[in-house]
Amino acid sequence: MPLQDHHQIISVDDHLIEHPRVWQDRLPAKYQEQGPRIVETDGMHLWHYDGQVIPTIGLNAVAGKDPKDWGMDPVRYEDMIPGCYDPVQRVKDMDLDGVQAAACFPSFPGFAGGTFFRAPDKDLAYLCVQAWNDFYIDEWCATAPDRYVPMALLPFWDIDLTVKEAQRVAAKGARTFSFPDSPVPLGLPSFHSNHWDPLWQVASDANIPISLHFGSGSFMPGFSFSAMKPIAGQMAALDAPMAVPTVLFSSNLMWSTVDLLFSRTLLRFPKLQFSLAEGGIGWIPYILERSDYTWERHRWYQDIDMDARPSDLFKQHFWGCFIEDQHGLANREAIGIDRIMIEVDFPHSDSNWPNSRKRAAESLAHIPDDEVEKIVETNARRMLNFPRTN
Amino acid sequence: MPLQDHHQIISVDDHLIEHPRVWQDRLPAKYQEQGPRIVETDGMHLWHYDGQVIPTIGLNAVAGKDPKDWGMDPVRYEDMIPGCYDPVQRVKDMDLDGVQAAACFPSFPGFAGGTFFRAPDKDLAYLCVQAWNDFYIDEWCATAPDRYVPMALLPFWDIDLTVKEAQRVAAKGARTFSFPDSPVPLGLPSFHSNHWDPLWQVASDANIPISLHFGSGSFMPGFSFSAMKPIAGQMAALDAPMAVPTVLFSSNLMWSTVDLLFSRTLLRFPKLQFSLAEGGIGWIPYILERSDYTWERHRWYQDIDMDARPSDLFKQHFWGCFIEDQHGLANREAIGIDRIMIEVDFPHSDSNWPNSRKRAAESLAHIPDDEVEKIVETNARRMLNFPRTN
Repeated sequence: MPLQDHHQIISVDDHLIEHPRVWQDRLPAKYQEQGPRIVETDGMHLWHYDGQVIPTIGLNAVAGKDPKDWGMDPVRYEDMIPGCYDPVQRVKDMDLDGVQAAACFPSFPGFAGGTFFRAPDKDLAYLCVQAWNDFYIDEWCATAPDRYVPMALLPFWDIDLTVKEAQRVAAKGARTFSFPDSPVPLGLPSFHSNHWDPLWQVASDANIPISLHFGSGSFMPGFSFSAMKPIAGQMAALDAPMAVPTVLFSSNLMWSTVDLLFSRTLLRFPKLQFSLAEGGIGWIPYILERSDYTWERHRWYQDIDMDARPSDLFKQHFWGCFIEDQHGLANREAIGIDRIMIEVDFPHSDSNWPNSRKRAAESLAHIPDDEVEKIVETNARRMLNFPRTN
Repeated sequence: MPLQDHHQIISVDDHLIEHPRVWQDRLPAKYQEQGPRIVETDGMHLWHYDGQVIPTIGLNAVAGKDPKDWGMDPVRYEDMIPGCYDPVQRVKDMDLDGVQAAACFPSFPGFAGGTFFRAPDKDLAYLCVQAWNDFYIDEWCATAPDRYVPMALLPFWDIDLTVKEAQRVAAKGARTFSFPDSPVPLGLPSFHSNHWDPLWQVASDANIPISLHFGSGSFMPGFSFSAMKPIAGQMAALDAPMAVPTVLFSSNLMWSTVDLLFSRTLLRFPKLQFSLAEGGIGWIPYILERSDYTWERHRWYQDIDMDARPSDLFKQHFWGCFIEDQHGLANREAIGIDRIMIEVDFPHSDSNWPNSRKRAAESLAHIPDDEVEKIVETNARRMLNFPRTN
């Protein structure tokens, strides 16, 4: 049995659904109306926030449902299993699933806080970021500190506030920052600029890895999505099924990985770490081989570091995770066995809940025990500075 | 020796540089001035065409140069080795390189004719497409019919003209059509629409595969290129080195492959074939595993065929090629040994000329003879209907 009973599964990518009072409980009185709140409309629970109405789509909370019943319609809280929004119930769901601990990304804010980035009132948006961090760290994680990994959002539209909030949450115990998988589609400076250096410095100093979750930078992969150009001023019909970007999640993370490998950021910040969330791992050997091939041929006449081989940089700075990825596991040596982690993705539609441990045991059946322990547990504990307590 | 002397290398992706009289020799007198012609300016050879000035960049013709001398500056014909633009000299270069035959993509027109698509005068553009096809098939390929694979461009902005030209060149012996890797970034209907069905019908009837060359649809992969959004109305500086999209070539072809696998096009046209040019092969196992995973979970509530498993469709409809790709070759079973081909990419910067055969022998050293024969020769001959003559 490669997956042993004493191996604790640490999921580096799960999700929570915010309960209706997350912001109402924390925002000052003058922002109660304008801040995020749930309004019941035509039988649906919808978020109202700063002039926008934002549904919680069903696909975000399908745990426990048959794939044949999945859909994209907005749901009510009663339609979700309580573990989506209740941390005490969630621990019971994790027990059922054989999962010890989870880092939970936000839902209403977007995976990295894009909802607040897009909102017009930036004073309120900053308070909303802080409220989510306080909710997740002080309220949610506090219910079971050995079961939940503290994560924090950043007000990334303002680098000074970003540094301030990063330092605040680092002091409160944050173990990872969720950052847009790329700032570029948001109109912000790229990973090739020096703009983010103050954040990279805080992260390096505090030993906090940056989690890049697919889609957190608002870019949907696939020609029929973000890459689509208007025809005669009109956007074409979105005729591709959502399965296309679902398959292609990882291409966002390929792009960001290659951006970082060919920037000088990793050379300026030798301790900086990036976690590629929900990107799978099977693409990594190809991208590293291709990166090295390109580096060997093209570094002579481009602004590329002459000494830092991309595949070496990857193994010093990146961590990948998977739900099921037989190709990646079969090629784990080329990825780096010390750099592979597992994710559960509860309660999203790619999750195997309540069979995550069972499926992991099947996936890992042919892998030696010591490697399994790294993949399901100790790599994530090391990356997140989240030591075992029992 | 896995690569045997009797194995003939067929490259499915090479390039030619058009000589200055390609269009001047063929366009009617009224279009001589407006059609593509070379004008010498400040010591450079530049194309003038329909109001535009288009340089031939150095990176398109680096064969025989040391990587340390590569650059992006416009060049003169005398700066290229003659095999770039002279088919008789090219055969000598191919002999030196140990390559039997090559399908040559265009340069000035773009890999699939995008230069003509973007030009304002569409009557002239249509004539320019026909002129390139006549030049390549009647002039270039005719110098050595067993060494050059006839390819044709299409006036893809007009589906009726596209069908007409496809039928015309099929009758002249075209063995593949070069088509944009995706029509979507050009503002044209996607692979999910029925718009292209008349072309797919001609290709199916004539047994002509569609070559999708990276970049032929004008989309540059990477967040700092096509995915970049303007900041305050201004495009940000392109601060990523060109190495980034060079590494990421294949992500365009991943996107198009997944578009096609999840469209119903392949079900409507069971004989239709796609060649993924200059995309490498090492990413294919991951994308197929991920496609199947997504198909198994999401086909129930989306407009996706219930019976056609994506990985099965791939092995019936797609062909991949590589220059060097150890990860892909090590995982060739998962790609399909009958679907892997080799490319030389002469005279571009990824080419190993004049060592293509030597490097192929090294790459293929651990692969059985019968598989090597398929990979270097017989798969391409079968896809292209280009039988051996000696």
